[in-house]
Amino acid sequence: MLIFIGTGIWDEKDISLRGIEAARRADEVYAEFYTSKPSTNAEKLSDLLGKEVKILDRKDLEERSIELVRRAKEADVALLIPGDPMIATTHAAIRVQAKQLGVETRIVHSSSIISAVCGITGLHNYRFGRSATISYPHPTTSTFPAETVRANRKINAHTLLFLDLHPEPMRIPEAISLLEKMDETFMELFAVGIARAGAEDCELKCDRLKKLRRFDFGPPMHVLVLLAPKIHITEYEYLMEFAQAPPELENLIE
Amino acid sequence: MLIFIGTGIWDEKDISLRGIEAARRADEVYAEFYTSKPSTNAEKLSDLLGKEVKILDRKDLEERSIELVRRAKEADVALLIPGDPMIATTHAAIRVQAKQLGVETRIVHSSSIISAVCGITGLHNYRFGRSATISYPHPTTSTFPAETVRANRKINAHTLLFLDLHPEPMRIPEAISLLEKMDETFMELFAVGIARAGAEDCELKCDRLKKLRRFDFGPPMHVLVLLAPKIHITEYEYLMEFAQAPPELENLIE
Repeated sequence: MLIFIGTGIWDEKDISLRGIEAARRADEVYAEFYTSKPSTNAEKLSDLLGKEVKILDRKDLEERSIELVRRAKEADVALLIPGDPMIATTHAAIRVQAKQLGVETRIVHSSSIISAVCGITGLHNYRFGRSATISYPHPTTSTFPAETVRANRKINAHTLLFLDLHPEPMRIPEAISLLEKMDETFMELFAVGIARAGAEDCELKCDRLKKLRRFDFGPPMHVLVLLAPKIHITEYEYLMEFAQAPPELENLIE
Repeated sequence: MLIFIGTGIWDEKDISLRGIEAARRADEVYAEFYTSKPSTNAEKLSDLLGKEVKILDRKDLEERSIELVRRAKEADVALLIPGDPMIATTHAAIRVQAKQLGVETRIVHSSSIISAVCGITGLHNYRFGRSATISYPHPTTSTFPAETVRANRKINAHTLLFLDLHPEPMRIPEAISLLEKMDETFMELFAVGIARAGAEDCELKCDRLKKLRRFDFGPPMHVLVLLAPKIHITEYEYLMEFAQAPPELENLIE
């Protein structure tokens, strides 16, 4: 059997009791830190689970995933995944491959920035539209994030923007500069920057993008939420209390 | 201090290690099963945490939340919440109230259907638009869910629909009948029904709404995902392997 176990939003303490029990029962335990950058490592995970945890890299997950699936045909194999499993399509592809080779699979869910963003910012879940990723510039850099923001704003929805992880986790100021190149009018929009979601020293700040780029969020991981054109009064109150929002945010209340 | 601890998607084993430790350290532990219906109870939670867990009802959370906040001024109070905290706006209101009265707060995140739906269905997170809730009919029943589905379809996005919980958790066939009354053309759309997300006996099925209404999903909780007009080939493959999708779903591949 191949068990995908989410290790949750921040470090090894975000694994669920179900996940810990499943990993301890497994014959072999692997972890990957490629699809996200959790604040844990093989040693901490091994200590918690009482068994060796081997780290897999991108090639193990993509080109050589068949090896993992074959191991899971013989033994109970646990794959520890940052956040909630399957948010990265890489894992979904491995699960399909396993099913097609007759290997049973299970998923143990855990916390993810996708739902945590609501608790951190106070923004209502049902007011988020599609999310997107701001990638480092490369020859075929797309303006997809800008299009997603515009499409969401048309239906008065917030946009969660993930920042590229490779070669190193992007920070909010760089993400804002890339957004400015896509559409400089975005600099007047209100957004919430979030650093280290799920950690005790989680930092967040709400302001116009042009101002957020000068705020010191500290180390990664960073994400960015672009607000809808109108916000609910309870969203406003929460951002004022917890995200140091400027008083002019009041103008967005619908 | 007031600590909001998510108990996760299904039962008490979905609490994170961080959440268990925080609840065990707390002076008083409360739980609410109003904003969702987890498959746990006060006794199981008390056994796991080694201390009494008192259940709060809707009035405790809404009209009498000040009492909880006042307790948290004197002692470390943990509030156990199904799923990931703050997805229900009720909790966000309590956190704002606590902050305004000078009470420190913390959130311990956990798994939620909001991210789990991606792992369960294989649908890509960034292809989901706004979500909505299908409520039991009442004099002011809105067609809001239908409008959300239409708006999302315009931007080729999936729609996660929560089903009303009160007075009892709604099931998929009733939700489909209510959608039919809002817009009978929806009956031709493809959707995925999910029952008991996060449980070992999680059930899912993909088909046109008119056919899904005859599928036996078993007991609650149920949710429904209406597919975007076009889906990615990897979404198609996953739904074929894990959601018993009909071959004609192939026509939606973009």
